[in-house]
Amino acid sequence: MSPVKVFGHPMLTNVARVMLFLEEVGAEYELVPIDFVAGEHKRPQHVQLNPFAKMPGFQDGDLVLFESRAIAKYILRKYGGTAGLDLLGENSGIEELAVVDMWTEVEAQQYYPAISPVVFECIIIPFIIPGGGATPNQSVVDESLERLRGVLGIYEARLEKSRYLAGDSISFADLNHIPFTFYFMTTPYAKVFDEYPKVKAWWEMLMARPAVQRVCKHMPTEFKLGAQY
Amino acid sequence: MSPVKVFGHPMLTNVARVMLFLEEVGAEYELVPIDFVAGEHKRPQHVQLNPFAKMPGFQDGDLVLFESRAIAKYILRKYGGTAGLDLLGENSGIEELAVVDMWTEVEAQQYYPAISPVVFECIIIPFIIPGGGATPNQSVVDESLERLRGVLGIYEARLEKSRYLAGDSISFADLNHIPFTFYFMTTPYAKVFDEYPKVKAWWEMLMARPAVQRVCKHMPTEFKLGAQY
Repeated sequence: MSPVKVFGHPMLTNVARVMLFLEEVGAEYELVPIDFVAGEHKRPQHVQLNPFAKMPGFQDGDLVLFESRAIAKYILRKYGGTAGLDLLGENSGIEELAVVDMWTEVEAQQYYPAISPVVFECIIIPFIIPGGGATPNQSVVDESLERLRGVLGIYEARLEKSRYLAGDSISFADLNHIPFTFYFMTTPYAKVFDEYPKVKAWWEMLMARPAVQRVCKHMPTEFKLGAQY
Repeated sequence: MSPVKVFGHPMLTNVARVMLFLEEVGAEYELVPIDFVAGEHKRPQHVQLNPFAKMPGFQDGDLVLFESRAIAKYILRKYGGTAGLDLLGENSGIEELAVVDMWTEVEAQQYYPAISPVVFECIIIPFIIPGGGATPNQSVVDESLERLRGVLGIYEARLEKSRYLAGDSISFADLNHIPFTFYFMTTPYAKVFDEYPKVKAWWEMLMARPAVQRVCKHMPTEFKLGAQY
């Protein structure tokens, strides 16, 4: 049986998310490189896989999917049982499942909008528009850091009560934090996490996972114009 | 058994989302009003239910939840079976379930970021800051409409192939579009939908549902300073 295919570049956060869950469950997969600097993601062949011309695309036989969070859940449902992992909480009661869903939504709706502008200002915009956008907009960064501190304060209180966000077992909710937080930790603002010791310890616990390390080795920590990633 | 409780105001989109799914499954519930104009959502009693001081909060016996999309899924899992509704696709195969998840993420990640700035500029900001923010930022509106047209074009192509976004049956993905689209339809830009006949027909099909009508009657179509909603 041919392995599932992921279409994209492993340095992109949404591609990294999909690879992360494939690595966690130990599934065989093929990474089909898409040269986004050359605009390959906008070509008809990729748009057939992802009509929004974004990455990743995903294929498992006749099934074509886009949206990294949905792909990740499919991977966990298909392979999680074999791997002995119940990261979605679907083998528990509907209450436990709801708590995983809740913290998964917190990542998407509260954490991501707070942390992502810092990553965009410090890394993504300067990388996409070399020269033109190289200076981060400090007021955007400062507002986002204030918002991020609010979120991290709530996480700190939560992690005083449980080992992970949705309880004492790791879940989909925790692991979804990896891609953007990884890049945030390469910015000058990484030390914000030092103000929240439980959050810092949780982050180090996540980063110590072998699957996380295998995915993050494809994610650069320095961004240089013209470099090959 | 005491009914589940929703804490919030029914004119707010995330409160409306939770009420919508309660109405769809025909569950008994109690709406506990929170006077957000008076800042009640920031008081300790509400923050115990929702640490982000947002609405809604939700309580089912000992279970306390926040994040409207997670609450909605819990409602569907708890009551959907009795109501004969499988809006999450969980009674189908993992492929069908993945397609519902994918279009649910499209709403959250592509549609919402495109449509919401128009609703913020035309309705929410003028309502929150009467006088100060009453004039919509036209460049934000124009950029968002361009982005929205891109999304609606993809929806139009999808709805040429299936009756609803995730297939021929209505799903969680479709119904999540209701709250923000309802308010968008009260702005001067509602006619953008006329450019996409399949999307327009899909929207009208959603709005014709009795549960949708019961929820939307609490959502104003005119916003007046000092009015009681």
